[in-house]
Amino acid sequence: MGENFRPDMNDIREAQRRIAPHIHRTPIMTSASLDEIAGARLFFKCENLQRTGSFKMRGATNAIFSLADEEAAKGVVTPSSGNHGAALAKAARKRNIPAWVIMPNNSPMVKRRAVEAYGGQITLCEPTIRSRQETAAAVQARTGAILIHPYDNDRIVSGQGTAAAELLEDMPDLDVIIAPVSGGGLLSGTAIASKAMKPGIRVIGAEPKNADDAYRSLKSGHIESNETADTIADGLRAVLAPRTFAILQRLADEISTVTEEEIVAAMRLLWERMKLVVEPSGAISAAPVLNRRIGSEGKRIGIILSGGNVDLASLPFK
Amino acid sequence: MGENFRPDMNDIREAQRRIAPHIHRTPIMTSASLDEIAGARLFFKCENLQRTGSFKMRGATNAIFSLADEEAAKGVVTPSSGNHGAALAKAARKRNIPAWVIMPNNSPMVKRRAVEAYGGQITLCEPTIRSRQETAAAVQARTGAILIHPYDNDRIVSGQGTAAAELLEDMPDLDVIIAPVSGGGLLSGTAIASKAMKPGIRVIGAEPKNADDAYRSLKSGHIESNETADTIADGLRAVLAPRTFAILQRLADEISTVTEEEIVAAMRLLWERMKLVVEPSGAISAAPVLNRRIGSEGKRIGIILSGGNVDLASLPFK
Repeated sequence: MGENFRPDMNDIREAQRRIAPHIHRTPIMTSASLDEIAGARLFFKCENLQRTGSFKMRGATNAIFSLADEEAAKGVVTPSSGNHGAALAKAARKRNIPAWVIMPNNSPMVKRRAVEAYGGQITLCEPTIRSRQETAAAVQARTGAILIHPYDNDRIVSGQGTAAAELLEDMPDLDVIIAPVSGGGLLSGTAIASKAMKPGIRVIGAEPKNADDAYRSLKSGHIESNETADTIADGLRAVLAPRTFAILQRLADEISTVTEEEIVAAMRLLWERMKLVVEPSGAISAAPVLNRRIGSEGKRIGIILSGGNVDLASLPFK
Repeated sequence: MGENFRPDMNDIREAQRRIAPHIHRTPIMTSASLDEIAGARLFFKCENLQRTGSFKMRGATNAIFSLADEEAAKGVVTPSSGNHGAALAKAARKRNIPAWVIMPNNSPMVKRRAVEAYGGQITLCEPTIRSRQETAAAVQARTGAILIHPYDNDRIVSGQGTAAAELLEDMPDLDVIIAPVSGGGLLSGTAIASKAMKPGIRVIGAEPKNADDAYRSLKSGHIESNETADTIADGLRAVLAPRTFAILQRLADEISTVTEEEIVAAMRLLWERMKLVVEPSGAISAAPVLNRRIGSEGKRIGIILSGGNVDLASLPFK
């Protein structure tokens, strides 16, 4: 008797077809110098080069283009720390519907400007999960817009899974795949696609030690919260939802936690050696292998560089 | 009666075959957002992603692998502001011969570290052309090493021309091609390849107003010098040599000069929108089109982003 878990690989395949006209199939890059540091063969899936500068465009596009016309007409709304909001605004504009984006008032200016440039309507809130949710609910009540949660949504998870699907189509013989984990949308989609396409692969999440709720949740067996989330990886301050927690319990092999210094060092290597602008939340997935933390020596490792939206006027390099 | 100019397209084809095993065929990237700013279709040849982080690897590899065994045995020496030195060190190591690199004592640390990492032996000199040449001559006399000038050398010019040759192989229908100009090695090679492969193409050099010797030289008809060369584009402070001047007189259509602010603005757009780390000397070739200076609206423009070696601890972004 097989169990039916959703979303599954069919949902990801459907998402691939749905979003293909609207997203980039991003390149996979390699670096002899980073391979040497890691003692492994690294294959970087460059979602920093995705439209809107992050993988979030995949899930947002899948969610918006899955809506029936009458649902879509009133627009969409989301609470977002930035990249999902920008992606939702961009995808909504492609479908010619309005997007309301609830952003914490401490979001980097570069992310706010991006949302505005894509035609999103920003409503600022306090930088707490509660304030975000309340503000989003108020906008939703006023406008009738559909809430598109950044990760607690099957269409979002399926869309995010298309990055790993592309990576494994191009590089079928990976031993390990690593993605950042925050709310768990990207890692959930990555795990579903990876285990379906290559059952023996190890799926690893990379998470800041300073916001390690996913690490602790998978240890304890129930969803843990973060008392504080003081990390430079501003995209990784959210916590798992029941939906993503259940997927990761089933399919994730390990959460590797890294320090702030390790995040910045990984970011610096990606900028200096690969000439890629990658944000802290995007560079974190390289940190476990560059620090040889996960027994990956000699292996072939897929690494999802999830985004590149960073404020150039306030960089952490000394 | 045809005239025979050397180097010619045959030399560039020979260079392509010679260096192919040692260099990257770099990708061509595009950006809808930069196209919109320029009002043109832009095709960026990403030599910042070349081995050693700049196009200089092409010429250096061609020069070193052109040497007879007995010439090569005593090694090579060069005066270089950085990228050529790093490339020469790397290419020399590939051929297993020593490389002495003469660098001005105000070169960015990131470039000095690169030369050392590739096994080059650095000798510092004063930041004047004369001091560089004298120091190089002294090393040459002491070691018997062959001098590989950064641009006053046919093999170097032919090697640099392979970037444009690849670009036009991949994108044959360009109307314009733009490369930075300093000593003129890259622009000379670019002009030779471009006019041979597509006679109607416009070949444009991009040069800092603060070090505009090439612009003035092509106006006056003889080689002009720079009284000062106070530009953030630290790779563009050299002046034309008779060899490159003659090639550019014959084949370059225009030199477009840009301000320091325009260089930084172009660099910032490449970093923010394309997520590419490009150094000021490499970003300058985008400045003429982003400022709509060269009548390029509606055209298809090839832009050589020549390098990406920049000190992350001292960036010009505010």
